[in-house]
Amino acid sequence: LAYRVAVDAMGADKGPSVVVPGVLLALQQHPDLTVILVGQEAELRALLPPILPERLVIHHASETIAMDESLAVAMRSKKDSSMRVAINLVKNGEAQACVSAGNTGALMALSRFLLKTLPGISRPAIITELPTTGKKCRVLDLGANVDSSPEQILQFAVMGTILSQAIDQIAKPEVGLLNVGTEEIKGTELVKATSKLLAEVPFINYFGYVEGDDIFRGTVDIVVCDGFVGNIALKASEGTAILFSTLIAREFKRTWYTKLAGLLVKPLLTRIHRYMDPASYNGASLIGLNGIVIKSHGGSSVRGHANAIHQAILEIKYNVPQLIRDQVASILVSDAPE
Amino acid sequence: LAYRVAVDAMGADKGPSVVVPGVLLALQQHPDLTVILVGQEAELRALLPPILPERLVIHHASETIAMDESLAVAMRSKKDSSMRVAINLVKNGEAQACVSAGNTGALMALSRFLLKTLPGISRPAIITELPTTGKKCRVLDLGANVDSSPEQILQFAVMGTILSQAIDQIAKPEVGLLNVGTEEIKGTELVKATSKLLAEVPFINYFGYVEGDDIFRGTVDIVVCDGFVGNIALKASEGTAILFSTLIAREFKRTWYTKLAGLLVKPLLTRIHRYMDPASYNGASLIGLNGIVIKSHGGSSVRGHANAIHQAILEIKYNVPQLIRDQVASILVSDAPE
Repeated sequence: LAYRVAVDAMGADKGPSVVVPGVLLALQQHPDLTVILVGQEAELRALLPPILPERLVIHHASETIAMDESLAVAMRSKKDSSMRVAINLVKNGEAQACVSAGNTGALMALSRFLLKTLPGISRPAIITELPTTGKKCRVLDLGANVDSSPEQILQFAVMGTILSQAIDQIAKPEVGLLNVGTEEIKGTELVKATSKLLAEVPFINYFGYVEGDDIFRGTVDIVVCDGFVGNIALKASEGTAILFSTLIAREFKRTWYTKLAGLLVKPLLTRIHRYMDPASYNGASLIGLNGIVIKSHGGSSVRGHANAIHQAILEIKYNVPQLIRDQVASILVSDAPE
Repeated sequence: LAYRVAVDAMGADKGPSVVVPGVLLALQQHPDLTVILVGQEAELRALLPPILPERLVIHHASETIAMDESLAVAMRSKKDSSMRVAINLVKNGEAQACVSAGNTGALMALSRFLLKTLPGISRPAIITELPTTGKKCRVLDLGANVDSSPEQILQFAVMGTILSQAIDQIAKPEVGLLNVGTEEIKGTELVKATSKLLAEVPFINYFGYVEGDDIFRGTVDIVVCDGFVGNIALKASEGTAILFSTLIAREFKRTWYTKLAGLLVKPLLTRIHRYMDPASYNGASLIGLNGIVIKSHGGSSVRGHANAIHQAILEIKYNVPQLIRDQVASILVSDAPE
């Protein structure tokens, strides 16, 4: 099997200087991968050897969407942006997936506009794996949607289940609904209505309510929630991880003794850092689209960008959009896309 | 100044065996503190020396509200529960504050029923300080309310400002509104309406939107949000902290070398643990009531319970409910309590 992935080279906080090495790392890791690098050709060539590495193609795009660009500009003015061109390569079949570290809102809007959602799916969601003390946990939606209806959260649960079945090879992944308590009377009206709906669909292995800490305990395989809540949980977790790392760095710098101790335990701290590092989980999927679109974190490291490409390869390998297309109609009473 | 605090001795996960030592520690820390220990007298006496320590009084209460007790039982059946008796001591003026590590829902419901909310405040909120890399940050609501209106979140902002002015001695504490992005178009309809309202009230030093990680960066002095979102952010942070601690413990246990290294850096890890430990921040205030009620964490350590009593003393010292009562009417167009 060969994989063809279009990578928006321009859309990270530090631009191509981090994305391009990430692409080179991914090409090393995956001998069956071809990357179509989309962006300012001259800028990209400057970062690459005169003779391009094997399985790397440059596809010129004259414009770039800035991280703080308005949606209107991204959608209407910049017709030749690297992001748009990369998504279009998926649309016209030249690539099987695209990866971008650009503006999330623009990536979501352009993907929906160009690729459309799958039949039966009202809106795509953002799903990613998060680190836990136990088994793997995937969470959605992490911020594509706010004010989602119970029916939409049910669609998230179905898509999460299909992805987990395919990639994690779990027959009946357990799905938890994020709430502020596990008793039946807890939560908003939205959460209560959603819980009722999830319990009624036989395809979903519904666990019931979970709390914010359950994500990181690996209590269930999949956690579903509205994107507003999911994004805040994700950022609160990132904030706490940064706080922990800052405290560790600060403590080890206090005296010559702690500096020495820091050297002794460095490999150990590196392992912890690697486990907690968002780069290890980089590559959030915009699930529910008629095509594979992976969001790489804008501030990600070289290793992080390579991981995002790895996530794209997994979804190509198991053909996740096709699985959703095949199964969703029989599972859900199909809603018209918005 | 002398402080009289009623402590519900029965309402923690491990019961009086942790709360009583916490009370003894607090009495040592505060020579001007008197504690009225409320609970099963025989059980409490068994944990105390035959001659009671100075400034400690036992107030017998024949019943206990279990952590999983229904609200109906807590409210209607158990008229002599330690929690209810402790709140009533505040109501009738025998204590200036009460502290309980019992069921949060029951504590909130009984407090509202017995003490009532202050004029102009629709519902009390839960506020606590959280650890940050920067300045102190207080967050509310952490779970007392779900589906709060913009007007209620404005009340949270006013109460948080008054508390921070009094206890933290900050003249104009900055207030951030929790959202999924900092651009104006981001967020739910609720958040947008709330932002507009916060910007209109001169008493509030409104910073604008903050994200989940800003809580732990100390971006602002006060973060306001609906209780559903606040509780999930809090629990996600707790889950991440537990994950970090688990990883550190696991890594240091791997080999004889790492075990030895663990001994060398133990004081350093203890300092980090102490800084991150929820016990250091224990003592959430049920703010907005006609009286001081402090929620101690059910699973807290001895030190944590002592910290919750310390929080009660601070609120007595600065007379927080009276400050809210005096100022709220002039700040807000008064809403009738629900």
